[in-house]
Amino acid sequence: MGTELLLGQIVNTNAQYLSRQMASLGVNVYFQTVVGDNAARMAFVIRQAAERSDILLITGGLGPTMDDITKEVLAGVLGRDMVFDESVWQEITGYFTRTGRAMTANNRRQAFVIEGSSVLHNRYGTAPGILVEHDRRVYVLFPGPPRELHPMFEDQVRPYLVDHGYAGREVIHSRLLRICGLGESTAEDMVKDLMATSQNPTIAPYASLGEVHLRVTAKTQDIREARALIDGMTMRLRERLGDNIFGFDETTLERAVGARLREVGVTLALAESCTGGLLGQRITSVPGSSDYFLGGIVSYSNEAKKSLLGVSATTLAEHGAVSLETAREMVDGAMKAFGSDIGIAITGVAGPSGGSPQKPVGTVCIAVKTPWEEEAGVHQFRPPRADINWRSSQQALTSLWLLLGKVLAARGEPPEPVGP
Amino acid sequence: MGTELLLGQIVNTNAQYLSRQMASLGVNVYFQTVVGDNAARMAFVIRQAAERSDILLITGGLGPTMDDITKEVLAGVLGRDMVFDESVWQEITGYFTRTGRAMTANNRRQAFVIEGSSVLHNRYGTAPGILVEHDRRVYVLFPGPPRELHPMFEDQVRPYLVDHGYAGREVIHSRLLRICGLGESTAEDMVKDLMATSQNPTIAPYASLGEVHLRVTAKTQDIREARALIDGMTMRLRERLGDNIFGFDETTLERAVGARLREVGVTLALAESCTGGLLGQRITSVPGSSDYFLGGIVSYSNEAKKSLLGVSATTLAEHGAVSLETAREMVDGAMKAFGSDIGIAITGVAGPSGGSPQKPVGTVCIAVKTPWEEEAGVHQFRPPRADINWRSSQQALTSLWLLLGKVLAARGEPPEPVGP
Repeated sequence: MGTELLLGQIVNTNAQYLSRQMASLGVNVYFQTVVGDNAARMAFVIRQAAERSDILLITGGLGPTMDDITKEVLAGVLGRDMVFDESVWQEITGYFTRTGRAMTANNRRQAFVIEGSSVLHNRYGTAPGILVEHDRRVYVLFPGPPRELHPMFEDQVRPYLVDHGYAGREVIHSRLLRICGLGESTAEDMVKDLMATSQNPTIAPYASLGEVHLRVTAKTQDIREARALIDGMTMRLRERLGDNIFGFDETTLERAVGARLREVGVTLALAESCTGGLLGQRITSVPGSSDYFLGGIVSYSNEAKKSLLGVSATTLAEHGAVSLETAREMVDGAMKAFGSDIGIAITGVAGPSGGSPQKPVGTVCIAVKTPWEEEAGVHQFRPPRADINWRSSQQALTSLWLLLGKVLAARGEPPEPVGP
Repeated sequence: MGTELLLGQIVNTNAQYLSRQMASLGVNVYFQTVVGDNAARMAFVIRQAAERSDILLITGGLGPTMDDITKEVLAGVLGRDMVFDESVWQEITGYFTRTGRAMTANNRRQAFVIEGSSVLHNRYGTAPGILVEHDRRVYVLFPGPPRELHPMFEDQVRPYLVDHGYAGREVIHSRLLRICGLGESTAEDMVKDLMATSQNPTIAPYASLGEVHLRVTAKTQDIREARALIDGMTMRLRERLGDNIFGFDETTLERAVGARLREVGVTLALAESCTGGLLGQRITSVPGSSDYFLGGIVSYSNEAKKSLLGVSATTLAEHGAVSLETAREMVDGAMKAFGSDIGIAITGVAGPSGGSPQKPVGTVCIAVKTPWEEEAGVHQFRPPRADINWRSSQQALTSLWLLLGKVLAARGEPPEPVGP
């Protein structure tokens, strides 16, 4: 794996994964190093790392090919032999039988392990992992593919580290608060005093496309204490930011909106032009979305806007396909076609061509219609094309999220963010 | 930046970017290291790196906050002073005037540079970069945000490295061949002799969701020679893999299919059920797709399949919503609704619920209809939901790609992959 990383062909997601896992165990990660599939440089890096760390997590280079030399290099650094392990050999032959694949002579190499090490079983591939205790340090070798590495860490290495007292006395725990409908500087302004004064938990802002995130991170003796600190800060941030906080951690805006549609008990239909199906894709990416999502019409041509959504030829001629008038007729057409309670229509100029002085690339009209209230607006988003479309879907979901929040509040049910 | 990386909160895309840039300059990257915003550990890592490398590229920690200490640490390691730079100060104040932002006292710190260094101008932020030559080594400090780092590297550092003879005598150049319609092991089997015997260029396979990639990499004295080697191998691989190679490098399957729709001169309409708009989104992500894409109907409910696509109640009752019969009627309905030459329909069980013994989660029926030929198939894709939908869209695009290729061949126009 190292060589692909050093050529910049792939990005190092294993480092991220393992670092996050170690943070959750309260183990400080001070260094990450990438080195190629070269014995001398690998040995050099392992020796350096052993000088400065107690735990070395090493990924990749356990496969059957000639490039895969990690085990052998570590054995060399530690001055240990490689020994054939019959039980590993049984597992490897079993894997090939089970998956019906053909074995090569090289696979036999994978049954050799470092003398005196513990073998980590690999349920999703042929390369076993290895754990060696040596000179008051722990060395763990993981296979490179994430789908093999993740279960091996979680089922075997994490418990080992906890049982052997490596989990830290200080736990680092964090929660991401996801915010829609506020720009980065506006959101920061609303909480900047808390950001400046709170030492534990800390608050760090991140801007993403059409969303702002605040990461609240606590460092404490135990996880309950960390959660309590984070809960307290979450409450204070919600007092400032209100219903614009739509969710926590991995919760997407489409999932939050879906939960709210279900809570309010209404159905949704779409009319998409420039976004081409993106909004429908996002909404249906949520399992169970068929409970509230009826469907959509992607009217990429004017003809389709007329025949399928009933937009009038006069409206198109007088105001154009990208106009509030067209968006309003599109939303009516979608609601009628699907018989839904709520409709969203998006029509805009995603570019790179098709702009005009009056309606430059990035002009997007969005209409959201509910039984209680309707909203239609002209927005100006920055190219490129993919960003314009993403922000359009984000804006539409944000409008619906906030409108449904008002409906809940009017019912006397306080609107809540959606958990992970 | 380092601390966020060590906590696993973000992934290290800067390392990938810089490594790829150095590979294209023929400079071997042997090590990547991540360290936190801690003076002692940063100094330790810089000293170690200086022992083993000629060029040190360091990113992050140049901002105005107290955590940003990279410049000061490097100055300390090199035994140089920090000096106030009037021209940098002018640039920083100019940036704030231009963007209308408020300056803080900390921004003055950003005008201090390492004595005897060259300042790298930052067009997209306030933090200047720094380049220092010291003891036959080059140290470059870059700001962390990619949109500031990339232009700084390309406009200032890359030319410096070339002018000062750091660009390697050996150039590493590669091309990605993108393959649809063949599984990883099938594709590998068809070219395994070339993979085993060719030393320069090398061929490495990668599997991605519903696609296989072959990376052809040449290492030569100059870029023209590398391109010639890669062109030669591309021809040999095309003899084996034929029209299943749909594109090179960054070419997506939706872009390749779009180019072919334009070449053949036909229009397309969609009927999507489980994919919820994903296929429309992919097709319209290509600029200019309105030339051949008319629109789609996302019929998430049975009611919509009947009323908008004309699927008969009998078909739905007898065969179910996920059936070849329904897919065939959906494709007819979409072609009729939009008046298109070609139609694609997708209906399936994306899960996690909704499966049955006869039609488990992952069962997807896809119909592709053209004026020349029609194709309808039942596929079984592995969960999770997002994978099932992605593979469904991939399968539909693959079928259309290959069908249109046969049309071109019949016209006497050899079908070609689509370039980057």
